[in-house]
Amino acid sequence: MAHLSIIGTGNMGQAIAAVAGRGGHTVQLLGAADAATAATGDIVVLAVPYPAVGTVLAERGASLAGKIVVDITNPVNFETFDSLTVPADSSATAEIAAALPDSRVLKGFNTTFAATLASGQVGDLPTTVLIAGDDADAKATLADVVTSGGLKAIDAGDLRRASELEALGFLQITLAAAEKVAWTGGFGVIA
Amino acid sequence: MAHLSIIGTGNMGQAIAAVAGRGGHTVQLLGAADAATAATGDIVVLAVPYPAVGTVLAERGASLAGKIVVDITNPVNFETFDSLTVPADSSATAEIAAALPDSRVLKGFNTTFAATLASGQVGDLPTTVLIAGDDADAKATLADVVTSGGLKAIDAGDLRRASELEALGFLQITLAAAEKVAWTGGFGVIA
Repeated sequence: MAHLSIIGTGNMGQAIAAVAGRGGHTVQLLGAADAATAATGDIVVLAVPYPAVGTVLAERGASLAGKIVVDITNPVNFETFDSLTVPADSSATAEIAAALPDSRVLKGFNTTFAATLASGQVGDLPTTVLIAGDDADAKATLADVVTSGGLKAIDAGDLRRASELEALGFLQITLAAAEKVAWTGGFGVIA
Repeated sequence: MAHLSIIGTGNMGQAIAAVAGRGGHTVQLLGAADAATAATGDIVVLAVPYPAVGTVLAERGASLAGKIVVDITNPVNFETFDSLTVPADSSATAEIAAALPDSRVLKGFNTTFAATLASGQVGDLPTTVLIAGDDADAKATLADVVTSGGLKAIDAGDLRRASELEALGFLQITLAAAEKVAWTGGFGVIA
């Protein structure tokens, strides 16, 4: 049984909280007004837009030491909608990991639209959460939360693969925005 | 009705030839021994590994002027299996387009395993070919070949999206190599 703190009460934060709840895990959901409230979770999910991550890290960085920190962001440049805002040879997750050297930082949930987390399905396929990171135990812990909540999880490799997961997330958002795929669809994983 | 020249007789070249054939299009399949044979297709598919593309362009570059050229490569560093061999802010397709300023260069077929082109299915989903490029007419011409051959096609955006398609192709290869997905599966597209 895991205890999660989810920072961010938007549709992704709520959907991840529901997945964890379905799996019997406990969840602390923290909004913007809760900056002074300590995150009590062993797993802390940064469910805020990438531009807000810096503020969260400034407020909470030291208190995240020893925890599993899950970055779900897609750092899309929403002005141009034509690139990411992180260097092409890096990733949001790599930047966050560099800022949190005492946390075990994972990428996850950035390739699954909120509706597919809520429904458990991408079209007729089960929703699969792709998880990348350098700590195998941390990835297994997060995968257990995901699978106990009724979804599938795949270890997508080490932290460097966050770059490809962000490219996939970005591409999927552009396809949905262009109405080429639905926000209830996108990329499904066929194992 | 289109006429395609497919350069490369490996499993991808053969699978793409079969798709085009099913659609009633004509195909010239050119192997390594055919370097002196002119590519007669209006659409030329570079179905060779990325390291061999340079040789093909040196042999045929000038003769590809005016044609639609389709880059299907995933320029994976197969020594490290940990990155692509093109700059992170570029793509194989962008490099090829720069070398062929008088061709209309598209990215396509790099996110569909050969088996899924042959069967028409990714698991139980129809196989979807993602196509990127700057020329809308060229993309529509290639999409017609794909859909007449029984597959689905999606316009994935302009040439810059080749970078994300290559990231997706790379990720999918790493997942298959790690036996996290099957070579008959991978990422399916749910519209």
